[in-house]
Amino acid sequence: MAKRAGIIGGAGYTGGEAIRLLLNHPDVELAFVHSRSNAGNPLHAVHADLLGDTDLLFTSEIDNSVDVIFLCLGHGEAKKFLETTDIADSVHIIDLSQDFRLGESVKGREFVYGLPEANRDAIKKAHNVANPGCFATAIQLGLLPLAKAGLLNEVHTTGVTGSTGAGQSLSATSHFTWRANNISTYKVLTHQHLKEIRRTLQGLQPAYSGALNFVPVRGDFPRGIWITSYLNCDLSLEEAYELYTSFYEGHPFTHVSKKQIDLKQVVNTNKVLIQLEKVEGKLVIHSIEDNLVKGASGQAVQNMNLVLGLEETAGLKLKSIVF
Amino acid sequence: MAKRAGIIGGAGYTGGEAIRLLLNHPDVELAFVHSRSNAGNPLHAVHADLLGDTDLLFTSEIDNSVDVIFLCLGHGEAKKFLETTDIADSVHIIDLSQDFRLGESVKGREFVYGLPEANRDAIKKAHNVANPGCFATAIQLGLLPLAKAGLLNEVHTTGVTGSTGAGQSLSATSHFTWRANNISTYKVLTHQHLKEIRRTLQGLQPAYSGALNFVPVRGDFPRGIWITSYLNCDLSLEEAYELYTSFYEGHPFTHVSKKQIDLKQVVNTNKVLIQLEKVEGKLVIHSIEDNLVKGASGQAVQNMNLVLGLEETAGLKLKSIVF
Amino acid sequence: MAKRAGIIGGAGYTGGEAIRLLLNHPDVELAFVHSRSNAGNPLHAVHADLLGDTDLLFTSEIDNSVDVIFLCLGHGEAKKFLETTDIADSVHIIDLSQDFRLGESVKGREFVYGLPEANRDAIKKAHNVANPGCFATAIQLGLLPLAKAGLLNEVHTTGVTGSTGAGQSLSATSHFTWRANNISTYKVLTHQHLKEIRRTLQGLQPAYSGALNFVPVRGDFPRGIWITSYLNCDLSLEEAYELYTSFYEGHPFTHVSKKQIDLKQVVNTNKVLIQLEKVEGKLVIHSIEDNLVKGASGQAVQNMNLVLGLEETAGLKLKSIVF
Amino acid sequence: MAKRAGIIGGAGYTGGEAIRLLLNHPDVELAFVHSRSNAGNPLHAVHADLLGDTDLLFTSEIDNSVDVIFLCLGHGEAKKFLETTDIADSVHIIDLSQDFRLGESVKGREFVYGLPEANRDAIKKAHNVANPGCFATAIQLGLLPLAKAGLLNEVHTTGVTGSTGAGQSLSATSHFTWRANNISTYKVLTHQHLKEIRRTLQGLQPAYSGALNFVPVRGDFPRGIWITSYLNCDLSLEEAYELYTSFYEGHPFTHVSKKQIDLKQVVNTNKVLIQLEKVEGKLVIHSIEDNLVKGASGQAVQNMNLVLGLEETAGLKLKSIVF
Repeated sequence: MAKRAGIIGGAGYTGGEAIRLLLNHPDVELAFVHSRSNAGNPLHAVHADLLGDTDLLFTSEIDNSVDVIFLCLGHGEAKKFLETTDIADSVHIIDLSQDFRLGESVKGREFVYGLPEANRDAIKKAHNVANPGCFATAIQLGLLPLAKAGLLNEVHTTGVTGSTGAGQSLSATSHFTWRANNISTYKVLTHQHLKEIRRTLQGLQPAYSGALNFVPVRGDFPRGIWITSYLNCDLSLEEAYELYTSFYEGHPFTHVSKKQIDLKQVVNTNKVLIQLEKVEGKLVIHSIEDNLVKGASGQAVQNMNLVLGLEETAGLKLKSIVF
Repeated sequence: MAKRAGIIGGAGYTGGEAIRLLLNHPDVELAFVHSRSNAGNPLHAVHADLLGDTDLLFTSEIDNSVDVIFLCLGHGEAKKFLETTDIADSVHIIDLSQDFRLGESVKGREFVYGLPEANRDAIKKAHNVANPGCFATAIQLGLLPLAKAGLLNEVHTTGVTGSTGAGQSLSATSHFTWRANNISTYKVLTHQHLKEIRRTLQGLQPAYSGALNFVPVRGDFPRGIWITSYLNCDLSLEEAYELYTSFYEGHPFTHVSKKQIDLKQVVNTNKVLIQLEKVEGKLVIHSIEDNLVKGASGQAVQNMNLVLGLEETAGLKLKSIVF
Repeated sequence: MAKRAGIIGGAGYTGGEAIRLLLNHPDVELAFVHSRSNAGNPLHAVHADLLGDTDLLFTSEIDNSVDVIFLCLGHGEAKKFLETTDIADSVHIIDLSQDFRLGESVKGREFVYGLPEANRDAIKKAHNVANPGCFATAIQLGLLPLAKAGLLNEVHTTGVTGSTGAGQSLSATSHFTWRANNISTYKVLTHQHLKEIRRTLQGLQPAYSGALNFVPVRGDFPRGIWITSYLNCDLSLEEAYELYTSFYEGHPFTHVSKKQIDLKQVVNTNKVLIQLEKVEGKLVIHSIEDNLVKGASGQAVQNMNLVLGLEETAGLKLKSIVF
Repeated sequence: MAKRAGIIGGAGYTGGEAIRLLLNHPDVELAFVHSRSNAGNPLHAVHADLLGDTDLLFTSEIDNSVDVIFLCLGHGEAKKFLETTDIADSVHIIDLSQDFRLGESVKGREFVYGLPEANRDAIKKAHNVANPGCFATAIQLGLLPLAKAGLLNEVHTTGVTGSTGAGQSLSATSHFTWRANNISTYKVLTHQHLKEIRRTLQGLQPAYSGALNFVPVRGDFPRGIWITSYLNCDLSLEEAYELYTSFYEGHPFTHVSKKQIDLKQVVNTNKVLIQLEKVEGKLVIHSIEDNLVKGASGQAVQNMNLVLGLEETAGLKLKSIVF
């Protein structure tokens, strides 16, 4: 019998992606999409691409008989929502905000950090999952094998993100005329995702205390995150490839490429591709994802699959946009 | 038991899209992908986004035991291929070139024009299908209901196409530096798709002899086709909506929108959206598609589904890119 | 002695372009830039590209000793401004809004329509100028020679505009995530510029009463307007070229190209390029401009040059962006 | 009396920019543009944006009576050209290739490295100039003040470049369909500009031996280079601003911004903007330029101005594209 899922905060970008994925999920039925401001309107009134795909309406009611609820709310809003709303204990929560990524709990609910490549067994047993940040996912997947091997030291990381990472609010830096053909940076060396990254890495390499230097760049494209990290490393390129390939063996969405990668290989998919280079004493790791899929709602569905005992890849074999 | 499909010319854009769709098709197995120049290489050596999805290799052999073969060859090449290659009579052919769209045949093979919204019953019974052109699909879907009602007269059409419409060959007009932020036109009033469009329309409205004026515009984006057509029409807006809605009832991919549409509603899907406006005595019809999906390989799969007696939408419920 | 100019509404896009042009004008000094909301701030606080070019501040004062004032205000705001503000009679007004394009006047001030290719002699003698609309400029320049020859009949026009045409306000259709790679239309067959276009054309061909069918398209690039118009015409292509070339002889910014044109030939310049095609009985006219330069502030400076007796091209020999 | 200039290799991107700049230069006449393959054709046959600006033809002759010749040839081609061509000793050479940036000479001609902010006095006295690389210019301008103060140590640099940096040749990574909305890297930690950068920096800080780690990123826009560098530094932010501001005082094109910068502030200008941030013990330096102007042909004209004793900014007060 199909599992049933609900979405809270279904009018935003991650909510919309969760809807798109669940509508086509073979084993899960989208039971409701909650949005106070849009209650009564069809989903396609907000997500215009859904016209012809579903006639479901947004609702202001919460159905506590579902198996799982996705929280697609702003940072700080998820915790507030759980504090003030009655959700049946039996319902699994997958939270896409940053509210529970560092071990926080609410009303006795505890959350497992939902990076399957680091934590799959724990996620399978978890009742609730804190879905990782978009940058955090791509950066961590580039570094996990090194951390497990105890090889991390000071890391230098550049990340270029698409505009969807900033959500749908209107702002000077989201104006088309400004952003088209433009590049800028923000939160240089201070991005909030550094905390959850360090937490995972130290879980694997407890002695790791090197700096994580991260330069986030606003790209002039809508979707995707490109990460390049480098650090001092004695491994040869072949050894490094061996380390990464064996680490990700059995993980269906993370693949190591021996050829040069480019961002559009993964856009609109749940995949992460990793490519390595060795230049003198430094190992360079490139890792790429779609920030809204593997970096948000796709990974949330992957976590749901694990939590509910479904096939990990169910509903996530997505056609790449490529071009 | 799953049907089996092969692809000829799998290294190009439409071949790549056919591969992507068939790899995820629930009822069809991708048996082989033929490419002389790439034989022996993995598909992902050419279509880098397929890394992690399949280890299939290109082949120079043709397996005549498949149920269906897609010809993803250049215009003129499809006919030549069928003339010089032994394909078992039992194998269905879906040809994506323009070689058989006007009633041409080869070695006794006849082709039904594969626009399901016009021809579904004939396609179901067809052995071979000539898949429509990308512009032709979107323009026809904007005009079919009027033709059936005998209301066509001189039509004025603008179409804006993404760069994938021009294929993967390198040329001055495909250079990023030239095309980014640029607009230009080509084949103004003389585009080759006008013939197949007129043929279909006259099938529905035999007396139709008005001019089809079509201005094709090169857009500065990779995927999608936007069509705006207008003509003199006495119908009220409500009557026109009624005409279109009832015409497309039962067609799973073509939908009429009462709200303003925009191209990204359909990118990376097999859908066509249509929107109508009435300004004084003129009816304006907007119709949009992804040129590589509904405009090429997606429609080819839709035609395969019909030919093989599968569900029309099988393998074609695609996640939109939206952003 | 240098002429002196002021700008009202200097914080918007057209105000910014007027500033950029006047800062480098060899014969005119930028005396003041008025903006109520930004008074006291440096120009580069709003127009960040001006950092290093000028330390001028926005002011809330109006200096009535200048030779000319540019009104870079919203539609409706220009008239209101002139009704409620004391501007010395001696000051020339160049208004970039649509408030005075159809013959309107205010407090005895009359305005000449500022399309130099149609009206140069009148502009030279004018005290005030109503600067044409961006679409209106490119469409008219594509049709003027035909109108003068009495050859206009029903015209079919497509126009693709960059996002700067919609100004700097934040809106759903100006959001980068929405607009990137997207196409849509607006005000189909009803665009407000049709009035000023018809007025000019009827001035040249009084009997002209054919329809002007105009489909405005939102492009996914910031700058530029592409226009394609076509109509029935008995001229041969050679005759048409001769008509256009001789019409624009002596006009320094409008040129006829015998090769295919593309939009980026004129971006960031004050030029208009025109290309002709003949297909059976129809003449096709392509015309392109930068909507903020020849379509707005550049043409305003051109009009200022004419009004003040300066060289028509002064300050307007601009380096193209090309790429 | 106007100086006279010639261009060798006028059909490429940097040649085209040199033409555009010299056509509008107040003190220099463009005497000839040499291109073997295009001899006899008008410049606008190759640089279509020049239609209406000039009727000059490409020539296969070299006029040795000019004051200065710009070599806009490929790397390796410039040296070969000078070895095999008779250029009068009196003619100044400004070479845009990398052939003479590291102290190389040819037939007795020596070249001064043409970074005016580092070398202005030497350039003024130079007979020939080796114009810096595009990345090299932006990176060096971000580091010069630190080098002069002896504060350089290991530097971590990310650079994002527009597609024009790769020239006009057709290649997989210059195909619009591939590059639009895409990100990739190349020559990570091994870019050839590192040599000329290190050479200049060691000229100012001879003991500097720290690593220069540079990650070059292909951006999906045509023009501009964004650089972010960081390093350990004890200066406070205020001290750093003071250091940079006083270093660049008197340099007309390099400006220090106290506000966040973005790439489009400098596109189509000869300016470089620099912004500083301090995060714990690290100083972050952002520096931006137009790769074809300050990163190539604009700086070449600036060097010409210095060599010929003209105003440093002559012909280089360019209207920004901004949008």
